[in-house]
Amino acid sequence: MGFAGRDLISINDFTNEEIEAVLDLAEEMNSRLEKGEGMELCKGKDMATLFYEPSTRTRGSFERAMHKLGGEVISFAEAKTSSSAAKGETIADTVRVLENYADIIVLRHPWEGAAKVAADYAQVPVINAGDGAHEHPTQTLCDLYTLRREKGKIKGLRVCLWGDLKYGRTVHSLIYALARFGAEVLCAPVQGLDMPEAVLKGIRSEYNCVPCKVKPDDLNSMMGEVDVIYITPFKPYNLALWPDLNAGSPTEINIREALEKTDVVYVTRVQTERRTKVGDTESVESYPIMNGQLLREFKKKPLVMHPLPRVNELAYELDKYPRSVYFRQAAYGVPIRMALIALLLGASELEVPQSRCIGSLLRKIAYERYKEVFGVRCPNPNCVSNHERESRYLVPEFKMLKGEPLTLRCVYCDYETHPPYIASSEWHEGKLENKRYYSSDSFMLGRIKPKNLIIFGSESEAQARGFKRSQYATSPKKVRRGGG
Amino acid sequence: MGFAGRDLISINDFTNEEIEAVLDLAEEMNSRLEKGEGMELCKGKDMATLFYEPSTRTRGSFERAMHKLGGEVISFAEAKTSSSAAKGETIADTVRVLENYADIIVLRHPWEGAAKVAADYAQVPVINAGDGAHEHPTQTLCDLYTLRREKGKIKGLRVCLWGDLKYGRTVHSLIYALARFGAEVLCAPVQGLDMPEAVLKGIRSEYNCVPCKVKPDDLNSMMGEVDVIYITPFKPYNLALWPDLNAGSPTEINIREALEKTDVVYVTRVQTERRTKVGDTESVESYPIMNGQLLREFKKKPLVMHPLPRVNELAYELDKYPRSVYFRQAAYGVPIRMALIALLLGASELEVPQSRCIGSLLRKIAYERYKEVFGVRCPNPNCVSNHERESRYLVPEFKMLKGEPLTLRCVYCDYETHPPYIASSEWHEGKLENKRYYSSDSFMLGRIKPKNLIIFGSESEAQARGFKRSQYATSPKKVRRGGG
Amino acid sequence: MGFAGRDLISINDFTNEEIEAVLDLAEEMNSRLEKGEGMELCKGKDMATLFYEPSTRTRGSFERAMHKLGGEVISFAEAKTSSSAAKGETIADTVRVLENYADIIVLRHPWEGAAKVAADYAQVPVINAGDGAHEHPTQTLCDLYTLRREKGKIKGLRVCLWGDLKYGRTVHSLIYALARFGAEVLCAPVQGLDMPEAVLKGIRSEYNCVPCKVKPDDLNSMMGEVDVIYITPFKPYNLALWPDLNAGSPTEINIREALEKTDVVYVTRVQTERRTKVGDTESVESYPIMNGQLLREFKKKPLVMHPLPRVNELAYELDKYPRSVYFRQAAYGVPIRMALIALLLGASELEVPQSRCIGSLLRKIAYERYKEVFGVRCPNPNCVSNHERESRYLVPEFKMLKGEPLTLRCVYCDYETHPPYIASSEWHEGKLENKRYYSSDSFMLGRIKPKNLIIFGSESEAQARGFKRSQYATSPKKVRRGGG
Repeated sequence: MGFAGRDLISINDFTNEEIEAVLDLAEEMNSRLEKGEGMELCKGKDMATLFYEPSTRTRGSFERAMHKLGGEVISFAEAKTSSSAAKGETIADTVRVLENYADIIVLRHPWEGAAKVAADYAQVPVINAGDGAHEHPTQTLCDLYTLRREKGKIKGLRVCLWGDLKYGRTVHSLIYALARFGAEVLCAPVQGLDMPEAVLKGIRSEYNCVPCKVKPDDLNSMMGEVDVIYITPFKPYNLALWPDLNAGSPTEINIREALEKTDVVYVTRVQTERRTKVGDTESVESYPIMNGQLLREFKKKPLVMHPLPRVNELAYELDKYPRSVYFRQAAYGVPIRMALIALLLGASELEVPQSRCIGSLLRKIAYERYKEVFGVRCPNPNCVSNHERESRYLVPEFKMLKGEPLTLRCVYCDYETHPPYIASSEWHEGKLENKRYYSSDSFMLGRIKPKNLIIFGSESEAQARGFKRSQYATSPKKVRRGGG
Repeated sequence: MGFAGRDLISINDFTNEEIEAVLDLAEEMNSRLEKGEGMELCKGKDMATLFYEPSTRTRGSFERAMHKLGGEVISFAEAKTSSSAAKGETIADTVRVLENYADIIVLRHPWEGAAKVAADYAQVPVINAGDGAHEHPTQTLCDLYTLRREKGKIKGLRVCLWGDLKYGRTVHSLIYALARFGAEVLCAPVQGLDMPEAVLKGIRSEYNCVPCKVKPDDLNSMMGEVDVIYITPFKPYNLALWPDLNAGSPTEINIREALEKTDVVYVTRVQTERRTKVGDTESVESYPIMNGQLLREFKKKPLVMHPLPRVNELAYELDKYPRSVYFRQAAYGVPIRMALIALLLGASELEVPQSRCIGSLLRKIAYERYKEVFGVRCPNPNCVSNHERESRYLVPEFKMLKGEPLTLRCVYCDYETHPPYIASSEWHEGKLENKRYYSSDSFMLGRIKPKNLIIFGSESEAQARGFKRSQYATSPKKVRRGGG
Repeated sequence: MGFAGRDLISINDFTNEEIEAVLDLAEEMNSRLEKGEGMELCKGKDMATLFYEPSTRTRGSFERAMHKLGGEVISFAEAKTSSSAAKGETIADTVRVLENYADIIVLRHPWEGAAKVAADYAQVPVINAGDGAHEHPTQTLCDLYTLRREKGKIKGLRVCLWGDLKYGRTVHSLIYALARFGAEVLCAPVQGLDMPEAVLKGIRSEYNCVPCKVKPDDLNSMMGEVDVIYITPFKPYNLALWPDLNAGSPTEINIREALEKTDVVYVTRVQTERRTKVGDTESVESYPIMNGQLLREFKKKPLVMHPLPRVNELAYELDKYPRSVYFRQAAYGVPIRMALIALLLGASELEVPQSRCIGSLLRKIAYERYKEVFGVRCPNPNCVSNHERESRYLVPEFKMLKGEPLTLRCVYCDYETHPPYIASSEWHEGKLENKRYYSSDSFMLGRIKPKNLIIFGSESEAQARGFKRSQYATSPKKVRRGGG
């Protein structure tokens, strides 16, 4: 499959081979930029940058990239106030208008899943430049390009993710990509700003990667040596190291050894604009500043990366450290985005071999889309499906994960939910008295064939469709398989 | 008269022949766009988009159009806060500076008449991209282009204007244009959001079009059949159908027949950002949603148009209806604006025959400008002449309509006012005791020669100029012609 | 020294010869613009306009200039809200990212000295488009170009600066430039909005220009003749006329004669957005409007200039006065900025003779940079060094002026401060009991060799570095040289 006309909403939209191809083309773009060679690949084309959230870096590098390709830009830098969204227009309508004025749309939006909605409705390619705390795939491409360019490879690199892993969308996209390319990842979050469970589960289910447990003794010995201030955010349960994609079983790790073997420290900013709970604020007080003293704990003199902007989490003294590559990382945004724009617009063509990416294969196996879902809403209040619903065009949609408990994953924002009731369409066609609904955690989940499964968000939804309560629907929490 | 160097402030600035010429050129532009042919007509030219109100569609399509012509754009997307207007600069000054930085200025402004002020002061062409609730002529050109392209003609089409006809500036420009091109128009406003009297009177006085009365029986029978919710906004007194431009006398119409014969339904959004009165809010509760059920009342399967953005007034289910053309309508903004920019910049030239447009001729006859007006202000609080006056450069200016009562129409926003007092300059030159002022609705209005007429906004204005109260100035409401 | 790669932060960054060269190139650009000749000098280059404050004129003319040179623009018109600054990014970080996306950066920022910080960190040229109330050098270039073009020369012109001379950054840059080019300047400020002492002292110390005193008799006779309202802002102590650069001694001037001989009146707007004190507001009530009546006091029919936007200080009736050149002045912004961009980008090259500019030489003599300064902060609360300090990268830095009292000038915003304590590094190396600190206004200032001078902002700073209080540190105000 070629790239022309496709969207980039999640880093998972591309196979590993496709990502490698983009990185290769970016490398070529970069050497032409360095030679000062002009490119006219996108002459006569317009790119719309539709930004509902602030940006210097991302918008700037996209616009630079389009200019370097000979194309033009139509800029909506303050889309929230300056565009028709101020009049209540839906995302779907906005992009169906904009597709007439631009050949490609770059969207940043505060709602999770917004870019997918835009891509679903626009006939021109849509690039996700950040949708809430969800994904930011072009940043991930820059990160991967930086890793490959500065370290020569991605597979086997030991990367420590440092800082706000909860709201930092860049690290969500990045951790998937690192897992796919076989890097080893150590999560070192600020206290209370851990990598979300959904992301960890996603990696576990899709890439068969299992978080490791830290041996208490090692942690204690480390705590005795390094400054307490810095160690507070480390909590055993969220220290996670994937030694290898192929290693399927949990192992215990040694934290000192982990830090000593780290090739790359990826520091992220606390996304204060996304935090709303009071409790979150306090944890920032004990935020560990990545500075010279702390960096010395990393014995391999790792690369220091940061998606920028930084606030206080990365000391300015590290700017002179030769392996601080965060400004180069920002610079690489231009060739990466040039490659991407040229490919999606069909201005550059690449032959990519049929995917053999383990990640993608696993994803296909891991779940199947299921359609008969009634009255279930995505539990993420910031999901686009919870904002656009009044317009009556955006119906919640889920993929069903394999296994138990019954789990639906929102196709927009990847949040998971466990709907309480199920029924079977087959029994319904049989005897009328069998038209009953059950608790989703009852033994019936295993008995109903997947193709017949009906899922309800509430009893009233089931009853509205003519189903009657079965004895296995009384008290979901108490009806276990063993009780069947 | 050619197009180069002219402004487009009102759709009435162009004769019918000129509008047809613009549509023809847009058609040519469109076919070149479809062939992917590049145009360099405006290479080296800059267009400034000066937007004091939000816009995706209008600004986006203008910028796309300029790029497609090979020109450049200087964008002031948030002019209210990002430009010198934040420092208190007047419109006149802003455009006299901007004309040095751009070859053409596209202005959107919340004050009615603002675009006329800009055009009066700028030496480069000014295009009105919407001035308050007043006019939005390039939208009208898109609408006319859509009608002609989708239906093959404009004359004789039966167009139903649906929704907010009070604050929707697009329908104000459109209704004039439809009247001029001989379309038949049915107004179906939301309750309380009727087409403004000034617009209806303008059409009546300038195009000799008279609103029709609906026969009560037909209305009753219809009310018995269709959903009440939808029928509430219909009120007999504002149902208006002009069967033909030449038909000068009121006729009675049959509402069912009207709906059945409708070729085009033009739905508009409730302009919540322009409504300030509490009473307005309530009517929106009963706002009729144009959906599949309602559309079935229109038997001829009409085109469905909408200037977008929509909020709730147009159901998403109609997106799949083959004659819903609102997204195409938005797309046509590009060739229309290309044609317009190229013409006003003198990059394209067209020979247009001397106007024989009835509308324009009527307009010339209907009023003459009158200068001796003292102390009269435009009654529209949102008129530019009521905002810019403190700067001491913008003097209110009016045209006097023919006939009685004495009526002045604001040259900026087209609002009308009836000043209370008059005098004659001739008598003043005669005997001093004759230097008196009269009520404007006294018999004296008919006796003073138009060239001698002096108009006052108040008695003190008259007295300040040395006039004394006559016996026909005592109580304006009671002094009638018969009393003279 | 060529221009390529340099920054323009202050008008003083250029020698007189360099300024003349820029004006010459602008003249050439202007004549090519008038002939409609295209220029492709900057094809393939991007200019970032990073505006943290509103602008029509400056941003518009920069963008026009870049387009006319064949280059592209990446626009951050609302940088405060739309860029990463909204997330707390420092100026240094922002420009180190942006330098990867643009070949030249144009910055407007509310903090004084912000442009210098940007230039210190960015590897691409930075142009100051206004930093708080500090400088606005490209406006000054436009002003000089206007003077030279409209009057044929600058030297010897008598220029009256009128209006808000306190917060109007344009006049701060302008007065330096006029002094350097040998124009004579009369300051006529609004009451309470005088030219800041720092600026007057700067001119005095660097150009050896001394403010003149007005003879009371002449002032009285003038006060008897002209409208009192207009005369109120004149206050003897800030009437300043420099008859010639070479005249080193104060002379008395005759105000009537000064007005009569004025070649140019430069009117400025009251910068209400920069005034915070309540007291300031009142003075604006008595603000003198420059109108026809007032202009008649200037017998030589002077040019009327204004940096625009105006509010109420310049009457619209003057727009028709043939020597009102403020709109032309705005127009000249395009060729001036074209020349500047082309030079800094190295697209145009000019041979400029080695500087023999008196101003620059004087500046070099007037102070030397001194590094051992501890605990001194810039007294200007709006200085960038008082905003960016929390980020721990921006250390306050000062130049020491020659002479007494001990004076440090902030390298960012040019504010001056008088630190209270000094010590010598030499004595410290000798006997330990001599490691003492002294009041800066004691006789010791003259005894310590400049190369050994250490400066402290407080006693605790001195004590923290091991110095002990000397007897000459007890009470600074009482210890005079004579007391030593």
